[in-house]
Amino acid sequence: MAQLRQTGPSDTERKPMNTGQDLDAILQAASDAKTAFRRQEPRTRYAQLAAIADRLDSEADALVAMAMEESHLPEGRLRGELKRTTVQLRLFAEEVLRGDFVDARIDQPDPDFGTGPRPDLRRMKTPLGVVLNFSASNFPFAFSVAGGDTASALAAGCPVIVKAHQGHTRLSEMTAAIVSDALQDTGAPEGTFALITGREAGVEALKDDRVDAASFTGSVSAGLLLAGIAADRPRPIPFYGELGSINPVFVTESAVASRGKDVIEGFAGSFTLGNGQFCTKPGLLFLPAGHGLDETLVEKCRSIRTGQLLTDSITSSFGERTRSLEADLPGRVLVQTVQIQGCPQPGVMKVDFPTFLENVKNISTEVFGPFAVIVEYTDPAQLLEAARHLEGSLTAVVHAEKEESENLRDLVALLQDKAGRVLFNDWPTGVSVTPAQHHGGPFPATTNPLHTAVGTAAVERFLRPVAFQNVPEDLLPEPLRTANPWGIPQKVSTPGESAAWGRSLAGR
Amino acid sequence: MAQLRQTGPSDTERKPMNTGQDLDAILQAASDAKTAFRRQEPRTRYAQLAAIADRLDSEADALVAMAMEESHLPEGRLRGELKRTTVQLRLFAEEVLRGDFVDARIDQPDPDFGTGPRPDLRRMKTPLGVVLNFSASNFPFAFSVAGGDTASALAAGCPVIVKAHQGHTRLSEMTAAIVSDALQDTGAPEGTFALITGREAGVEALKDDRVDAASFTGSVSAGLLLAGIAADRPRPIPFYGELGSINPVFVTESAVASRGKDVIEGFAGSFTLGNGQFCTKPGLLFLPAGHGLDETLVEKCRSIRTGQLLTDSITSSFGERTRSLEADLPGRVLVQTVQIQGCPQPGVMKVDFPTFLENVKNISTEVFGPFAVIVEYTDPAQLLEAARHLEGSLTAVVHAEKEESENLRDLVALLQDKAGRVLFNDWPTGVSVTPAQHHGGPFPATTNPLHTAVGTAAVERFLRPVAFQNVPEDLLPEPLRTANPWGIPQKVSTPGESAAWGRSLAGR
Repeated sequence: MAQLRQTGPSDTERKPMNTGQDLDAILQAASDAKTAFRRQEPRTRYAQLAAIADRLDSEADALVAMAMEESHLPEGRLRGELKRTTVQLRLFAEEVLRGDFVDARIDQPDPDFGTGPRPDLRRMKTPLGVVLNFSASNFPFAFSVAGGDTASALAAGCPVIVKAHQGHTRLSEMTAAIVSDALQDTGAPEGTFALITGREAGVEALKDDRVDAASFTGSVSAGLLLAGIAADRPRPIPFYGELGSINPVFVTESAVASRGKDVIEGFAGSFTLGNGQFCTKPGLLFLPAGHGLDETLVEKCRSIRTGQLLTDSITSSFGERTRSLEADLPGRVLVQTVQIQGCPQPGVMKVDFPTFLENVKNISTEVFGPFAVIVEYTDPAQLLEAARHLEGSLTAVVHAEKEESENLRDLVALLQDKAGRVLFNDWPTGVSVTPAQHHGGPFPATTNPLHTAVGTAAVERFLRPVAFQNVPEDLLPEPLRTANPWGIPQKVSTPGESAAWGRSLAGR
Repeated sequence: MAQLRQTGPSDTERKPMNTGQDLDAILQAASDAKTAFRRQEPRTRYAQLAAIADRLDSEADALVAMAMEESHLPEGRLRGELKRTTVQLRLFAEEVLRGDFVDARIDQPDPDFGTGPRPDLRRMKTPLGVVLNFSASNFPFAFSVAGGDTASALAAGCPVIVKAHQGHTRLSEMTAAIVSDALQDTGAPEGTFALITGREAGVEALKDDRVDAASFTGSVSAGLLLAGIAADRPRPIPFYGELGSINPVFVTESAVASRGKDVIEGFAGSFTLGNGQFCTKPGLLFLPAGHGLDETLVEKCRSIRTGQLLTDSITSSFGERTRSLEADLPGRVLVQTVQIQGCPQPGVMKVDFPTFLENVKNISTEVFGPFAVIVEYTDPAQLLEAARHLEGSLTAVVHAEKEESENLRDLVALLQDKAGRVLFNDWPTGVSVTPAQHHGGPFPATTNPLHTAVGTAAVERFLRPVAFQNVPEDLLPEPLRTANPWGIPQKVSTPGESAAWGRSLAGR
């Protein structure tokens, strides 16, 4: 039996929600909760998400103290992240009330439709079912127990099982108890939420037929392993993995000429932010040869004191990867990464363009921690060539002067195929949680380039369309009823406007 | 080298589009066409899709004659299907002009946004890249060379490579020549469209890094094989497979009492339509024991004369599956399927409920051709039990009286999890191509339950989001420019309305 931790509520008098049970019971309870949770109306779900946010806010001191102890991250960062987490929960609560993501469509019957009569046809997005979320190491709040994946899955109407990250299990239990209490007090069915711990329990749950979708943030190797399990089940399920990303930055000669120092200092600040443990960390910087900015970079890096990495295994991987790059790559170590009191300090290597091309896979594989590689190019055309050789990233940045637009058109068009977000004269760390955000990208940045893990569109990962043909009003889900009791926005196609469209006589 | 057929234009004077080339050249041309094709404006793409439709219509006589010869389907059906195909192309052309699927979103900068300043952030759906479509056997027009997958991928702005179905290669070549000509005359870049033939070429193309997505309609075994290839590439790609579906029909006692004869005759008509070779063929009918409709069914089935199946291999598989079911299942053969002049005639078996439960996998696995199984239940609660045991289907049907709604609530809720489309007192064959259509469903109906193969939403399979942060107006794709030169609908978030939303100080 997999190792499971209790997720009991803080008040021991109360009936706990999925606590002290075995994995099978947790899975069964989540599966049993599906229909009842789906049927709850938007204002109930709004209240559930808002209650989670409120209680996390009111327990902030205790949560942040525990997070500091387990993650080694500083208090300011963790308070900011918790704020982001609760703002995010309220944002998804508002999306539920708004109801746009339900994408309700009603085709009115049309006897003279194209090539044949059109029936009464109604379509909406319905919750996918039980969602299994694998927590991230690097966001103990925002992408863990009550983070974006959980918030968006609950907003979609899916029961959630969270696999705690081993880097912060006690914080995960504290958070889970708060989430469970809040859901229970706002009328969510038993089984709507549960926490499991242990790698083995996570894998077992992913294989279980009662799980309908999974999301993951972590390494390429672990992500591919889990993606394979999700695909090889007797019933394969959608798997949303956010894996590795090098997040390249392309700097033109003009940008160096007009504000080289700013660019270098911005770069050093961004790749060392959060001790270099952000998914959007810019790990690769293309600079024109002869930039004369080595000294600036060295100085800036030496002025930054990074803290302890999230876990011992991350610290040891960081040491191995950086040592091997420094030893194997024919380039110059600009800033040697050293450990100060167990905290790896920033490191930077510099290679020329031919070296980059010869070692592109190695150089463009993410190093998790405060390390980056600078590639010096000798011809602006090499920027395009470099981009062609790169795999997918969450982000890609161009630093250039506005007058250069004409020369950059092809590069920006290519980066659109290589990244989920393209930035101009900005840094990729710092991800807005907004309608226009896209935190995704081609493989290996994610395993499914059609979806985002951040922003309001993240809810779409946990919804699937379903259509109803000639179904009586009282058997239709509320969002598709003509009476529209929940006030969900409905797109209606009237017979007139669809005159040009067709219906097969023969069917499919 | 894989076997490739020429896809030359009808007029041999003209420069052909990807003809007589080897697979590598076809893949390279498609890849090279990506950026130029994506940049073409909506009215150009509208003209391209409309031109394909116009030319197919004007070549209808020759196309239908060839299709009759290769598919054994009757003229009326094929003319209807070709009509559906061209209506579908025009429908997607209109979607391109409308521009909703681009889902353009603009977040205006907001210095006081939640927990930090919000940048100028713009997001749209961009073409996924080169799409490889595997044609279907059962729709030589509507789901083959110029069918729904091709129409929706071109509408999305993706170059398309079609793998011809071996059952209608000459028709595929004729169609491909028409499509190529139409695209060439309306200014599509060279490489936008190509046809390949041969299983080996299809697999080779699917493994090639220049292909970015694939769609498939066919058997579970072939679909899973291809899905595995798409997932195991060094760069996995989205794969949209429509595989097998049993499409269960649940009939209540009241429905039998009030209109049993109609239900039975409707069922016989639907499961034998197109010789039982539709994806939505109802293959499983649940009837209350003692329905007294055996004679009606036998009579109706004997009055239907089905034609030759699509290919020899389909005919032989049909014979094997039906013989094995008739021999192995402890049930009664109601209508024995016999071959008349090489055409397998309708067959029906009847089993009791315990037999169904003991053989659920075998009974609910699609038989491609005019064959169905009737399950007699003795307790209405068994309908719910049966539904729980079924895998995913494209459709599920309930025949009941309107007064029974209260008793059917749980069944309809469960079917919503088991099917892509739920019908009431209707038959699943006959699929409208409309905004509210959903032709998809849980595995094994499809490999990706979030998407549809029919209806306007089919275009979403071939688009991925991309965001732009602080990118200057002239480097933005047209749909995201403030000037909006293409008139694409843009959803704008102003600073005021987003006051409650958050941005992390620390980034991600």
